[in-house]
This record gives sequence, C-alpha cells and structure tokens, in this order.
Amino acid sequence: MAGSVYGTLFQIMTWGESHGKGIGVTVDGCPAGLPLTEAQVQRYLDRRRPGQGRFATKRQEGDQVEILSGVFEGRTTGTPIAMEIRNKDQRSRDYGDIMDVYRPGHADYTFDQKFGFRDYRGGGRSSGRETAGRVAGGAVAALLLEAFGVKVQAYTRSVGNIQVAPERFDLEEMWQNPLYMPDKQAAAEAEDYLNQVMAQKDSAGGVVECVITGLPAGVGDPVFDKLDACLAKAMLSIGAVKGFEIGEGFGAALLTGNQDNDGFSLDADGRIQKTSNHAGGVLGGISDGSPVVFRAAIKATPSISRPQRSVTRQGEERELEIKGRHDPIIVPRAVVVVETMAALTAADLLLRSAVSRLDRLQAILTPGR
Amino acid sequence: MAGSVYGTLFQIMTWGESHGKGIGVTVDGCPAGLPLTEAQVQRYLDRRRPGQGRFATKRQEGDQVEILSGVFEGRTTGTPIAMEIRNKDQRSRDYGDIMDVYRPGHADYTFDQKFGFRDYRGGGRSSGRETAGRVAGGAVAALLLEAFGVKVQAYTRSVGNIQVAPERFDLEEMWQNPLYMPDKQAAAEAEDYLNQVMAQKDSAGGVVECVITGLPAGVGDPVFDKLDACLAKAMLSIGAVKGFEIGEGFGAALLTGNQDNDGFSLDADGRIQKTSNHAGGVLGGISDGSPVVFRAAIKATPSISRPQRSVTRQGEERELEIKGRHDPIIVPRAVVVVETMAALTAADLLLRSAVSRLDRLQAILTPGR
Amino acid sequence: MAGSVYGTLFQIMTWGESHGKGIGVTVDGCPAGLPLTEAQVQRYLDRRRPGQGRFATKRQEGDQVEILSGVFEGRTTGTPIAMEIRNKDQRSRDYGDIMDVYRPGHADYTFDQKFGFRDYRGGGRSSGRETAGRVAGGAVAALLLEAFGVKVQAYTRSVGNIQVAPERFDLEEMWQNPLYMPDKQAAAEAEDYLNQVMAQKDSAGGVVECVITGLPAGVGDPVFDKLDACLAKAMLSIGAVKGFEIGEGFGAALLTGNQDNDGFSLDADGRIQKTSNHAGGVLGGISDGSPVVFRAAIKATPSISRPQRSVTRQGEERELEIKGRHDPIIVPRAVVVVETMAALTAADLLLRSAVSRLDRLQAILTPGR
Amino acid sequence: MAGSVYGTLFQIMTWGESHGKGIGVTVDGCPAGLPLTEAQVQRYLDRRRPGQGRFATKRQEGDQVEILSGVFEGRTTGTPIAMEIRNKDQRSRDYGDIMDVYRPGHADYTFDQKFGFRDYRGGGRSSGRETAGRVAGGAVAALLLEAFGVKVQAYTRSVGNIQVAPERFDLEEMWQNPLYMPDKQAAAEAEDYLNQVMAQKDSAGGVVECVITGLPAGVGDPVFDKLDACLAKAMLSIGAVKGFEIGEGFGAALLTGNQDNDGFSLDADGRIQKTSNHAGGVLGGISDGSPVVFRAAIKATPSISRPQRSVTRQGEERELEIKGRHDPIIVPRAVVVVETMAALTAADLLLRSAVSRLDRLQAILTPGR
Repeated sequence: MAGSVYGTLFQIMTWGESHGKGIGVTVDGCPAGLPLTEAQVQRYLDRRRPGQGRFATKRQEGDQVEILSGVFEGRTTGTPIAMEIRNKDQRSRDYGDIMDVYRPGHADYTFDQKFGFRDYRGGGRSSGRETAGRVAGGAVAALLLEAFGVKVQAYTRSVGNIQVAPERFDLEEMWQNPLYMPDKQAAAEAEDYLNQVMAQKDSAGGVVECVITGLPAGVGDPVFDKLDACLAKAMLSIGAVKGFEIGEGFGAALLTGNQDNDGFSLDADGRIQKTSNHAGGVLGGISDGSPVVFRAAIKATPSISRPQRSVTRQGEERELEIKGRHDPIIVPRAVVVVETMAALTAADLLLRSAVSRLDRLQAILTPGR
Repeated sequence: MAGSVYGTLFQIMTWGESHGKGIGVTVDGCPAGLPLTEAQVQRYLDRRRPGQGRFATKRQEGDQVEILSGVFEGRTTGTPIAMEIRNKDQRSRDYGDIMDVYRPGHADYTFDQKFGFRDYRGGGRSSGRETAGRVAGGAVAALLLEAFGVKVQAYTRSVGNIQVAPERFDLEEMWQNPLYMPDKQAAAEAEDYLNQVMAQKDSAGGVVECVITGLPAGVGDPVFDKLDACLAKAMLSIGAVKGFEIGEGFGAALLTGNQDNDGFSLDADGRIQKTSNHAGGVLGGISDGSPVVFRAAIKATPSISRPQRSVTRQGEERELEIKGRHDPIIVPRAVVVVETMAALTAADLLLRSAVSRLDRLQAILTPGR
Repeated sequence: MAGSVYGTLFQIMTWGESHGKGIGVTVDGCPAGLPLTEAQVQRYLDRRRPGQGRFATKRQEGDQVEILSGVFEGRTTGTPIAMEIRNKDQRSRDYGDIMDVYRPGHADYTFDQKFGFRDYRGGGRSSGRETAGRVAGGAVAALLLEAFGVKVQAYTRSVGNIQVAPERFDLEEMWQNPLYMPDKQAAAEAEDYLNQVMAQKDSAGGVVECVITGLPAGVGDPVFDKLDACLAKAMLSIGAVKGFEIGEGFGAALLTGNQDNDGFSLDADGRIQKTSNHAGGVLGGISDGSPVVFRAAIKATPSISRPQRSVTRQGEERELEIKGRHDPIIVPRAVVVVETMAALTAADLLLRSAVSRLDRLQAILTPGR
Repeated sequence: MAGSVYGTLFQIMTWGESHGKGIGVTVDGCPAGLPLTEAQVQRYLDRRRPGQGRFATKRQEGDQVEILSGVFEGRTTGTPIAMEIRNKDQRSRDYGDIMDVYRPGHADYTFDQKFGFRDYRGGGRSSGRETAGRVAGGAVAALLLEAFGVKVQAYTRSVGNIQVAPERFDLEEMWQNPLYMPDKQAAAEAEDYLNQVMAQKDSAGGVVECVITGLPAGVGDPVFDKLDACLAKAMLSIGAVKGFEIGEGFGAALLTGNQDNDGFSLDADGRIQKTSNHAGGVLGGISDGSPVVFRAAIKATPSISRPQRSVTRQGEERELEIKGRHDPIIVPRAVVVVETMAALTAADLLLRSAVSRLDRLQAILTPGR
C-alpha cells in the first residue's frame, strides 16, 4: 500500500534503487504449469538495456536476471516467482550537485518533501532503472498471455514530431533500427532530429503505441476496473509518461457519434465482428475482441547538460549543469516497459474474467457435473 | 474485486442500474469528525442532473440523495457512509430493439460476452446513470479535501474543435452557460456547433479540464500508485473517456527537455517554487505543490438516431435506429464526474501520504512523547 | 480500508448502525447467472431475528430485506448486489447513561478513543445489529456455494459448560429448540442453566461449531491466505467471539504426532481419502476434501442489569446498571452469523482457486483450442 | 492475491522454498526515517534457527540476511525493503518416498490437488522454512513498533500438558532454556516429556502465548478488520497452528457476563483504566490500552519416523517411514514467528489508526493551520 504492488490476481511487487545492491520483482498469482526460464525473461530485459546505440547511455548495466523461486522442473509452481538483477557497479562516488540541488523534471524535490530525505544516488528509487523489475515481472505476464493466444506488441510511433506513416508501417523494421520505429524512413528522419537535439545539449520526447491482439471479448471489469482505465494507470505509472489514449483517443473529442461509432456485422463464419475499430478494442471498459490499441506520450529526458535554474535542499538558488551521459531520448527504451506493463494489466484482467460467470466456473470447479 | 470498489484508504463501493430500484454508494474510510449534510452532497448531484438545458435529455431524474449511515449529529463517525438515490420511474416498458440488438459504441455486446446476459433496460449497469454513485461519494471526498485547504475544479475545455481561449478564460462564466465553459464566446460558438450536429441527428464530444489547487507537495506514491497514474485510471473509468493527459500531456512529446523542464526558484518568503508548470503539478508521480492540471477526452454520445449497422444477440445483421431523446453531448454532465473522481483520488492519496514519515506519525500516535 | 470490506473476489461492504436509518450490504464479485430472490436471503435473516424465544430480546426488528440491484430476471448479473434492511423504529429517545458512561464489555470506550466521539444510540456501529448486513451478504455466498455442491452448517455446540454429546448428535433437532442445539437433552439442560443465570441478572456464553461439506480439495492459498487463517479472521470479526479452533484445535497441542496425523488410503472407487479428520479438513491451509470443521468461542452477553463499575466520558467514576431487556446469551443468534461468515470465506477462496492452474484456465479462456 | 502478501499499509510479500535458491521478503509501506540494520533483523532470524538444542534439527541453516534496498545511510527511505536469505545447501539429492508418497499431516496432497504438481524438495513452499521471510519482515515491524513505545513478546506457554505456572512466571527465564518457557521448573518437566516422546519416535505440540504492551487505545478497525480478527488470521497462517484465543478465549464461553466483564475506573492520574483484563486488551475489536494477550495452539510435528498409512501420487496405498532428523516439537522455533506475525499485524493497524480522525490528520497534513 505504498505503491510498489501492481495487480490483483496476477500481482507483482518491485524493489530496488539505481545505485543500491540490485533491482528485483516478485510475481505472485501466476498460475501453476507455465513453462518459464531465465532466458525468456532475459530477452525482455535486454530490450531495455542501455548502451545499444548512439541514443542510449554508454553505461553497461548487464542486467542478468536470476530466478530465485517459484519455478520447478521448468514450470511455474503457482507460488511466488522472485527475480533479481544485481547491480554491478555500486561504488561509492561523488554525486556532487545531485545530492543537494533539485534536478528540474526529476523527483528529487518531491521525494524529499514526501519522505524527509532520499537516496540521491542516481535518482534512487525514482530512477528509470526501477523499470527493470517491471520488465522482468511483465515478461512472465507476456508469456502467460501467449499461453492463451494473446500477443502484446509495442513500438515507437513518433519521435518529436516525426511520426510513423501508416502506409510505410512495417513491424519487422522496428527490430532493425535503434529507435524501434516500424518505418525505415521515419526512423532515419528521427535520427537526424535527435542528432540536432544532442548538438544543442538538449533532449527529445515521443509517443509509444501498443497493440494487444488475441484478447477474447469480455476482459475488463465494469465501472472502476475497466480495461482501458487499468491500462491508463499502467502507462502513467511509467516515469516520463504524460498522456494516455485508446483508439481515437483525444481525436475522438473531435469526431461526431456517427464518425466514431463502430458498427457490428457478421464475418464469413457468422461470428460477430466490428466494422471498424475507432474504440481501440474496448466498449464500456470491456474488451470487444478487436485489437486493443493505445498510446503513451513520453516527455523529453529531463537530464540535460544545459544550465538550469534550481535551488538546493538547504534553500538557496543555484544554477545546475547535469554532468555525465544521459539518453537524449527515453522513448526507445520505454517501448518494452510499455509492452510489459500492458502485459501485466491484460494478464491480471484476463484471470479475473475467468470468475465472472457461474457456468464457466462450474466447468472448472465441478468438472464431473 | 469485480470493479465496483475505488480507493484504498478513502474507499467507495457503488451499485445500481439505470432502470433498477436505485443507485447508491457506500464510503468507507472517511475520517471521523467531518461536517456532512445531504444538502452538500445534493449540490454535486444537481450538477450532473439531466434536463437542465437544450443539450441534455428531458427525462427528469430528480436524484434526491439520502444519507443512511455514518453521520451522527452532523459529523462523520468514521464508519461507512451509505447514500442512496432511488429511481423514480422504473415502470416496465418496451425496450424494443435495445433488448436484442447491440448498440454501436455501447457496452451491450461486451456485457453479454462477459456475463452471458445483461440487464438491457437503459444500459443497466453500463449506463451513464451509474456515475451518480461516484458523484455522491466524490462529494464527500471534495468536502474532506476542503478541510485541508484543497480545491478541485473541473470545466469544459472544448466542444468538438471549439476550445476555451486562454485570454478569455473566466471561471465564473462556466456557471452561466449550459456547457460549463469558462469562456462566454467559446460557449456561444459551441452551442451553434451543437445545433448543427443535432440537426444531422448526430452527436459531439469534447475535452474536460480539471485543476487541483492547495494540494501540498508529497502526495502520490512512487512507482505504481503515482498521483497522475491514479488520476489517469480515475478518468478512463468514466464511461466515454478515451484519453488522459497531465500538464503538457501529448504536447510534451513534441517539446525538448529544455522547453519542458520546470526550473526551481525561491519565492519572496524563501519557499521553494517552480518557475513554470509544464509538468502539471507532479514530479515522479508525487505532487510538487503547484496546481495539478489534467484533461480528459470525451467521445461523442454513442446514442444517435441515424440508422447504424448492427447485429442481434441471436446473430443476425440488423439496421438499428435508436429512438428516444439522448444528450447530443455528454461533456457538460461529465464535468462534475471528472471533478468528483479527481477528488476521490486526491483524498485517498492525501490520507496515504499521512503515513509516509516516521516523525510525523510519532507526533500523533505517541502524543505523550 | 476502514474495515467494512470483506473478501477479495467475492467481496462485501456493509454499513449501518443499530438505531440509524437501516443496515445494508453490497456484494461485488458474485458470478453472473446465480438464481437469487429476496425470499432466499430473508430465510437467513430470519434465523438471526430476535424475539423468537425466552432467550432473545423482545424487540421486534422485522428485518425485511430489499434487493436493490444486481439481479435481473431472477438471476445475478455479475454486477453489485445491494441489499438493505430499513430500521423500523428509530425514534429519538432517552439513551440515559449509555450516552456518557462506558458499558463494560462493550466498544463504547474504544470507539471514543479511536474516533473522538461515537453514535451512542444502541451501540451504533458496534451493535450486534451490524451482523444483519453480513448475514444478507453471506446468504448469497451460501447459495453460490450450493451451486458447486458445497454446504455450510453451523449449530450451538455448548452453552456454558453444557455440551452437545456426540452420541446424541442429531442435526434435525437443532431446528426444534430455541438454542439451535443438535441434542435435545443438552438443549433442555442448557435452558435450565440459562434460567438460573437470568434469575441472577447475569448472562452466559458458549461455543458454535460449523461444518463445511462438499468443498473440493485445493481451496485456500498457501502462506497468508490459508483457508483456516481466513476462517479464523472471519470468526473473530464477529463481535463477541474470543477464540477459534479447527479440527482438534487447542486439543491438538496435547496430542502427539502419531495421535494427530491423519493417514491416507483409497476408497472403494480408488479415490484418495484420509483415514481420520483430526486436521479438520485442511492441510497446509488448503482444503483436503474432508469436511472442514471449526469452532468459535462466544463470550457472555456483556449487557447485564447488575451494577457494574464504570467511568463517564468526562472522566468520573460511576456505577452503571444497564436497563432494558437484553439476550441472556448471544450464542443462538450467532449461529447463522458464523455460518454466513464461513460461507463468505469459502466462496471467496473457491473462486480464487479457479485461477491456480494454467490447464484449467485454458479450458475456459481459450475454448477454441 | 495468491496468498503471499500480508498487510495493507505496512505490507510484506514473501517468497522462497525450502530447497530452492533462497527465502526472502519485501516490505512495502514502512515509514521513512526508521533506523534499520541487518544485525537487528538477524537477531530475530537467529531465534528461529534450528540446531540450537536437543529439540531442534541438526541441519545448520545459517540464515544470514542481506538487506538489498530501501535503507540509505542507516535509515529506511519509505520505499521497499528487500531482504534475502540464500539457502546454503541446495544440492540435488534423493528425496525418495517424499517425491511420490503423501506425508500425513503435511501439505503434499493438497498442493498437488491445487496446483497439479509441486516442488517436493523438503516441502517446497509449504516448509516451515517459509517463515524465515515473515520473521525478517516482522523484525522491521517490531522495530517500528518500538519507535512508538510498543513491545511484542511471545513465549512458550505449554508443551503437551505441561504448562507455565502463573506463580513461577519469569520472563527472563525464557532465554535460559531451549524451549523458551518462562518457568524453569515447567521447562525441566517439558524436557523430560519430550525425551519420552522422542524415544517413541513420536512428536509433541504446545501453546505459544504473546503479549503486546504499550499499544495505545484505538488501534484496530470496527467490523471486519478488528485487531483480534487480524491477529487470529496472522496466527492461523502459521503452518502448524490449529487454534487462536484472546483474553479468556475459549474459557470465556464458560464464564458469565458478570465474571467476564472488565469494569472501568480511574488511575491515580485520573486516566481511564480497566479494573481487569479478561478481554485481553480489545473491546469491539479495538485496542483498549491494556496489554493485548493471546495464544496460539500448535500441533505436534507431523514428520515422525514411525510407519504411517499413506498413498502415492499415482494412487497406490503405501506405508511411509519418514527418514532424517526432524524437530520433535515445533513450538520453541514458532515463538519468534508468532511474535513477528503479531508485530506485522499491530504495526499495520497502528498505521491505519493514524487516519481515523480528521483532527489528528489536520495536525499532520496541515501543520501550519
């Protein structure tokens, strides 16, 4: 109840600071019998690893995950799955200004206000490094979803004002460029833009889009725990995210009902389908069987090396220049964080949907009837 | 755990369907000693009442709230506050097509998929009428916040593409027009636009903005229960909301770090303040003492009287024309829903922030020290 | 989070005070499709009604339940089931000493300490009348369990030191005497004892036993949410309960491992069964397929008309004589409270057990596989 | 939501199996500013260490705790405190019969029923070793309570039918004997009894008593989250516990109201006190300022080397003789588990009590008023 637990049936608790002993996560509520290996989780973690290109920090984190419990003979046991990533480099060093001066755009000031003091080393608990625990936990959720035929896929939709063009969209291309953009041309333009930004000791933002396919209709709860409401929370819980939208999103505010409504029809097999997907796969907060499509807006990296106005903890004004190398853009590394937070959300609500109907429950719990 | 409970320390559970016996809410966790009357709650409910102008349905709901428990001698007792609004008109009537044909843009189809059947009368639990319970509960939260000097205020920011102009912004004006727009000229233009839309048997959407002032720095929890993450969930849990953004929101994705970062300075009394508020009042998910500013995008009313493509529950294609009068726009009635959901969220996190520091707790729990 | 919510998947929130406008409960998470009527719930409520014999108060409460939501065409819809019992008699009257003097054995003093003041009318929220909400909610849980072939049955096991004799145990007999004792002779002896106690202006306690049959093996979660741990909480949450034990209970502390362990064997159909049931139906907190057998110890009614030492709210010593008629024993009316709290607990954990295995979930969530 | 999370504001999640890589716990919600070292936690863990006397297994576990996060410069930061105890000895070895034959009195059968298979090595997650995580987390809770002047102390009250005599009660003595009995003579008798039991290849049970002193009046929530209800759950969640009672407990069922009620009087300083403590420190589920006194009944160690009737996983009857050394009695090692589970419960409810009154909250949250 201090914000480090996520989910209800499929639940994770994360821990760890940027420059502490490590980062970790414990998954509780993963059903028994799911095949799971460290290598599968590691593949997700590798996608958020820094140092993979010009637009990421050079620090080599390594981030080797170790599964400590909850897996036996290659399958989940139904009991907690603890995973841990030890920090390689925790030497005590000079944190200089960061220790006393509040960095603009960071949580230094608010942590001090909330807790009375803070672990100032590299941002402590408010560091982006905290997301490693989510990614490890979310990898398990993604694997669980796959066992039900559900696939979650995120990618970079825009960098600054350079956007993936629908007509050039090529999902395979996202794996070919360091920005994870599924559009070769947009990726090239975005790289040029980022080079300009970096030359000015500045940073950039962008938008990540995510699509969930294969999710059956009926997932998400009415009223407060709507699928889109839970996804919105999941996205805004990621450090630099400033906005969330599903389907037409903010664009829906500009459409009329006639333009925005999705009709219903029957497919060749007589199954009900929607004639369009302006809604982004949810109606009344419950999945409608169409792809769930949503976006998260990510602000520019707040750590820039230009001088900025600030104050010290002791209450003196001070100009701050942040040293060291920082990602000029968070977006590419956030892609897998968006994807795994979406997986955690969908997995939890999918499990919850299993208990919504008496007839289905009777089929599970009294199979002999 | 089926989505009808909201909040952790300050908690509500809502119930009720559009055409059932009534709508209600129970508040648990409101601290003891808060002055509370039915009239105070009624004022909030009256703001979501339909039939107040051309752009709202003519149905007279009344919506008189009754407080059933938890208040004694004019003050909250610390035990559950049950509130109830009896539905006036629940005559059995002909629901015609709605009973069998899935309305586009509504939750008819997804409720059937989730639960196997549904209360089809007026949308049942997925009706906008469900929000009456939230508003009653949120009114208590808003009154609690006032006891701490915190004020929550929402208003219509745009209707279709007609937006409140910053230079004409006048909060008092919002009470003078049926659209709750704090800009007389924009309200007039929006009314023209809505008349056109109605003439075409169509509907419109818009954006609601909300500002929380007086919230001390330090509210909101790190990682998953960030203030903005909780607000995002609160907003998307409202039926027709398709997007959420805080501060610069989606615009932040277009800014550079240098443009978006808020500096720190000292005010005349030597207190720390930000030099701007692009962040919208949160840093790392924790309130920073500036106004919390966020927006919710609301889609056009899905009930339109034009013919729409649909299918029946039994799996036949059918053209649907929705009869009866419906709001051509939900936005004005959603303003108080946005406001009260924000109040519920802020009240809960404010209470939670009371237990984050040992020194503060010792002051109240070991008074003799 | 102020103690008025019970359960996780099958969840209730109760409200109401002894002399307020009414008592109520909202059930969230009951699966859709369960047949449910007010008459079914009423039957449970009638069992806790006072005024049914010499050993219960004469006040006629009536306690007519009204279902306000969540049921459509005779079946639960999967959305919240609100139920309400209006108090008949809430005339303002003279509460005399109770208003200022703390009654021994009651929560008057502790409510004042916790909340700063209290609704002193008839005990307010700490009145035994609060259990009416639980019983109504628990009736739904009991009916849900029946749909899975699970039956919960409680009865009076002892009154003072008069205990049901195993060799005379006759479940049908419990419906024939006002003490709900399944042993005619013990019931007669207990009535004599109670007459003596009443003649001395005193009161008595006893033990309620409860048996859950038909619960499949595998219900209850390892570690903290063990079936027996949840039952223990359920029982101690009932006002006058001072102890809980399962199977051999406190007697197990006197046995050796060889005496207490239950062996395993095969029944005629080759199914695994235990050779005894000292454990009371749980192993490691998980149901083992045997009957779940537990007991709750209930203290004597604290309201007695003898003079007692007390103090006033204002801090003066005062001798207190409680006027009015009070049950000389709570036990018989507690039987249905024990039974319904057990039903709530078992229903919740039964639903939770549906999501513990991947293979079972795949059968319902990916039916096409 | 699979049973591995305990608490609401002060919350722990535990993980780990008997013969896996380790055991651990993460604490979320500990207020910032509490001094905390590994040595302080280790002192609690050392008390549950086996191999400390004749009546405990010879296996040397070591159990060195490592704090991985949440502590900076010697104080808690308000963010999650992850703690880990690596298992020293996880060599793959021959588990022989245990792999296939269900041990009487253990959770082997029920885990298989619930999850479809299990980690059979040393009991896996259902091993008593699981409690190491609770003890580490509970140590933090105990230290937090001390910061508020609250002390939790458990001890062995009885072994078989040998009970601590009130007139010989000497708390210091408990540290002098391997049974943690605060009565030298009873401890000597209990040792004789255990020697007899061991000679018969059998095992014994007993009762642990626990006292919480210094807890202010007003802790515990009405209705479901009563202090005693939460303690009952805490106790029954410990593997071998079969019963819980508070104050007079089951004895209260034999007393009359006149015998059981505690009167109120004023102490020398005019403060309200009770004239006795039959209630065990709670009235209506809320602490009354007196010591909270409760007991947990613990069954005999189920692992005995005598032949027992059992069946195999494959459904064949088989006689089982459990090899290896096992504690002939769990009680002494359970003392610290009882104590730390009580600390977790009291710490959580103490924090929750901080938000029950508006006046106190205003003192914390708007100190300048």
